[in-house]
Amino acid sequence: MSTVPMTKLGPSPVTEYLRRVVADLREVEGGAVNTSIPELANADPSTVGIAVATVDGALYQAGDTKQEFSIQSISKAFTYAQALTDRGVEGVFEKIDVEPSGDAFNEISLQPDTGRPSNPMINAGAIASTSLVRNTSHGSRMERILRLYSRCAGRQLRINKTVQAQERRAGDRNRALGWLLTSRGIIEGDPTRALEDYFSQCAVMLNCVDLARMGATLAAGGRNPVTGERVLEPPVVSDVLSVMSTCGMYDDAGRWALRVGLPAKSGVSGGVVAVLPGQLAVAVFSPPLDRHGNSVRGVAACERLTKDLDLHFARTERNGHSTVRAEYTLAEAPSLVRRNEAATEVLEEHGEDARIIELQGDLRFAGAETAVRTVREAARQSRYVLVDIRQVDDMARFVIPMLGRAAEQVENTGHHVVLIAEKGNEHAGRLEHPMPVFTTRAEALTWAEDRILEEFGGGECTPDKVASTRSELLSTMDEEDVRRIRAHTEPVSWDAGATVLRAGQKFNGVFMVTSGRVEVSRRSPQGDRVELEIIGPGMSFGEIAMGTGLRHLVSFTALSDVTAQRLSPEAIAQIEEEDPRLALRWWRAVGQQAMLRIEERWRQRAGETHTAG
Amino acid sequence: MSTVPMTKLGPSPVTEYLRRVVADLREVEGGAVNTSIPELANADPSTVGIAVATVDGALYQAGDTKQEFSIQSISKAFTYAQALTDRGVEGVFEKIDVEPSGDAFNEISLQPDTGRPSNPMINAGAIASTSLVRNTSHGSRMERILRLYSRCAGRQLRINKTVQAQERRAGDRNRALGWLLTSRGIIEGDPTRALEDYFSQCAVMLNCVDLARMGATLAAGGRNPVTGERVLEPPVVSDVLSVMSTCGMYDDAGRWALRVGLPAKSGVSGGVVAVLPGQLAVAVFSPPLDRHGNSVRGVAACERLTKDLDLHFARTERNGHSTVRAEYTLAEAPSLVRRNEAATEVLEEHGEDARIIELQGDLRFAGAETAVRTVREAARQSRYVLVDIRQVDDMARFVIPMLGRAAEQVENTGHHVVLIAEKGNEHAGRLEHPMPVFTTRAEALTWAEDRILEEFGGGECTPDKVASTRSELLSTMDEEDVRRIRAHTEPVSWDAGATVLRAGQKFNGVFMVTSGRVEVSRRSPQGDRVELEIIGPGMSFGEIAMGTGLRHLVSFTALSDVTAQRLSPEAIAQIEEEDPRLALRWWRAVGQQAMLRIEERWRQRAGETHTAG
Repeated sequence: MSTVPMTKLGPSPVTEYLRRVVADLREVEGGAVNTSIPELANADPSTVGIAVATVDGALYQAGDTKQEFSIQSISKAFTYAQALTDRGVEGVFEKIDVEPSGDAFNEISLQPDTGRPSNPMINAGAIASTSLVRNTSHGSRMERILRLYSRCAGRQLRINKTVQAQERRAGDRNRALGWLLTSRGIIEGDPTRALEDYFSQCAVMLNCVDLARMGATLAAGGRNPVTGERVLEPPVVSDVLSVMSTCGMYDDAGRWALRVGLPAKSGVSGGVVAVLPGQLAVAVFSPPLDRHGNSVRGVAACERLTKDLDLHFARTERNGHSTVRAEYTLAEAPSLVRRNEAATEVLEEHGEDARIIELQGDLRFAGAETAVRTVREAARQSRYVLVDIRQVDDMARFVIPMLGRAAEQVENTGHHVVLIAEKGNEHAGRLEHPMPVFTTRAEALTWAEDRILEEFGGGECTPDKVASTRSELLSTMDEEDVRRIRAHTEPVSWDAGATVLRAGQKFNGVFMVTSGRVEVSRRSPQGDRVELEIIGPGMSFGEIAMGTGLRHLVSFTALSDVTAQRLSPEAIAQIEEEDPRLALRWWRAVGQQAMLRIEERWRQRAGETHTAG
Repeated sequence: MSTVPMTKLGPSPVTEYLRRVVADLREVEGGAVNTSIPELANADPSTVGIAVATVDGALYQAGDTKQEFSIQSISKAFTYAQALTDRGVEGVFEKIDVEPSGDAFNEISLQPDTGRPSNPMINAGAIASTSLVRNTSHGSRMERILRLYSRCAGRQLRINKTVQAQERRAGDRNRALGWLLTSRGIIEGDPTRALEDYFSQCAVMLNCVDLARMGATLAAGGRNPVTGERVLEPPVVSDVLSVMSTCGMYDDAGRWALRVGLPAKSGVSGGVVAVLPGQLAVAVFSPPLDRHGNSVRGVAACERLTKDLDLHFARTERNGHSTVRAEYTLAEAPSLVRRNEAATEVLEEHGEDARIIELQGDLRFAGAETAVRTVREAARQSRYVLVDIRQVDDMARFVIPMLGRAAEQVENTGHHVVLIAEKGNEHAGRLEHPMPVFTTRAEALTWAEDRILEEFGGGECTPDKVASTRSELLSTMDEEDVRRIRAHTEPVSWDAGATVLRAGQKFNGVFMVTSGRVEVSRRSPQGDRVELEIIGPGMSFGEIAMGTGLRHLVSFTALSDVTAQRLSPEAIAQIEEEDPRLALRWWRAVGQQAMLRIEERWRQRAGETHTAG
């Protein structure tokens, strides 16, 4: 094992992609920073940051993701969550409806019949949400709100006192809304404390990464993917995401649903967070706003990501938990090639130097991200990573290029990634940087083993020619015995492609291969031809029929020109008759080889069981 | 194999569930049938039907699903799809916006600036959509619209001439909308033909099953799950579902998003279709409408199904393609118990009588439905079905009861379903009708094999006691040889639980078990104890160490009180020295047994490869 440091491997293809998006976004013009308070008016309009956080804790970022900004209206989604937690769905619904209003966010309007704000994402609704959060013995309302945001972000967030003071100074319209809510009985009594807390919550500072983590906590049904803490209950999260899906982007809901198709929330400081339930969240920060009050580059970024990465709800997949069907090393699942002792020793020593990753399910972004992450991590540990995509149901167009890019990065470290795919050429054709593609796992494993043997083994590991006297079958016998057995054998040969023995044929001897390769195969119950073993120089075949009533149940095919020494049934009988002690030692050698193979199978099983359950 | 007819198995648990829902819905009062035309006014308000169609073609239904009704506004979603197909997204967006309006469906209003209808789900937008569908050489506009609906439903649908005539007679308000659209240049020229086609499209008749299939075609990205035909392109379907998600339920979008969370479309005849992308569609028909114009029972049914079956977008999973990780028979993957020849023969004959189904991924409704369907089908073919849920990531609360109900139904046919689960007792505790639960596949397979042997085999298949002279190891030797070998053995015994031999110990003989069971195990590279084989009366252990340098690499544990005859290393050496011909024959017998096991492994591999790729 030679572990490659992550720095040498380079940034993930996902990070590279986000960097390209940020570079493109810097070119996007238009929009204007919000000027409602000086701190917002002072924002640098050229700032752009993107972060993507997944439900299993991965994080990707590009651009100005360290830049802090005030949370502003994005707070509304999370405070609503706290209100739902404190008062229950029905308790909150009595005070705040959930219908998109079509109005601007700061409209002075409540529903004529009930006096309720139309939804919790307009200011009136948000002030009502804040008022519904309880003061408890575990903390004041504002402490509890800040604690919720912090637990969602996974770090302690703080209120910016300057922003808070400015919000308070610019808050007259919100005061009007507060008193209107009181007049309709939505807020009980003086709304001043609720308004104070509302101003404070808008002034909570965070950066793009915090926002992505907060979104990922919603994506994960309320469990923070990094800290593992359950921050919100799933039904609360479901309700919050639902309201975000219809009311989160002010009066741009319809176009947002069409172009992005993810529940989202934006704020006038220029932040946007979009959530793909069960999978991930995207956070963007860029101050210039469009006429709806949404970040121009934030909207552009979300549209771009949705399009490039198939994130739209109507094209989505579930989370990537099961993308990796199994991961195991060569040590646990060697190729079908029967190796000699020298080769087996080298391969055992380097059993961790090749690693198989089986992928499955639908590969869209979350699955591809998991796959790429797994491949990169595996390629740091192992010289050869074989990615088996034959069990993948459906694959988005960017998956193969993304795997290809990961393979290219790995190649630069001196390690290698190859693909195992049913339609090898079609997939390979989609790659800019070509990577080896095999159609069966056996082929790919053989390739990896051969390269390991070439690098670490001597010539004796993969000999072109092995005298029958050096056959593994006779390896436990002494030289004199081997010489005497050899005298009973005769040379045989086959051309490449020839059928050596067919299933059903009678036992006609034990064959010690001296050159070339023979494939052992048999029909599956469904009639498919299944490759079982490959036998090369120094190995033998035919002996198994001695355990099955002297009839072959498998077929043997010459993969190349093959030469062998044959010990015929008649020769065996003759030895048994004439030299029972020699026959005894021969049978013991043959039996020992078979025992060794049973033991090898046990060892493999012990490895397999761990990975495949 | 004894195949159970589906009728004997009874309806699927999914159907049973839908029947309960329909029975409950019949109790739901309220709402009024639409009276805009006589055909609608005449509808029977007690009618209730539900159908669920999945993207892999399964269909479940309950209630009045044969009752035909006119499609009415549900047509809007599909005609919009045809318009998008004919004119492209931009071409349609120029004429019809995608924002929820908050207005009633027949409001006389267009956007002041552009003259566009707010969205294609209000009448003005729908008339505009109709006008955008092209007349082509392959069919007139109306022919093409009807053909689209029919291809989505999977059967030829028809226009009801009476409804069509009544729509035409009651169409003055729509005529006003048509001319208004013309006045703003949204429709070019006389709108009369477009209006005629709009009246006709509203009069297309269908039943609940048709509607569910149409929805499933959208769920499947535009491919009809039954006919396999690609009816719509995925980007068009994505846009249609997006608009349905914000505008499909008239002005009830927010509450719908919260309570149901699925893109949907309803019509004034009382139909509703809700779509879970990638998975399924639910169609409900019941004429009484609420104040929004949505079917009262339709809304209630969708809320109920979402809640019961976790269909909400914020709690969703991907489609169920990979729910079944693998399915195979006992013939392809026997238990770890080494059986004698008689037992092996019986098990080979009945290899199809037990079937293993491995599930994986997140099991919510679609996955559970696939699982139940697979289990039922398997249980019709096989006497024992072993459902392995250890690879399942996350499971909705109804999954185990649903599997339990399927198991109960199967039990009634004389077949059996058992569960393999990590936390056996916890899962079993959730079942009304208890089903056997095993924690390992080996245990479950052993159980199934034992039952098959009990039923079809004689006592010799699972003997309590087997004399060492009848040991499989010696089965190819003649009686006299066996007797002579027997004379060299000595009796040994262990108490249940005793460690018989530890990995690392020196070879100390071949043990022919006469009673009790011994487990062979070894440590995985990760240190877990992996069970490899179970050896019972008539079988032997210890001989494998003769192939591995006379040292055991596995451990042996007595699973019960065990008695055996031991052939010690000294005895073997003595036989070899004193009677080489007997030794030769003994080694041959031992070698042949080992060969047989290698051949058995080959046979298994040929089976496995097919199912697990």
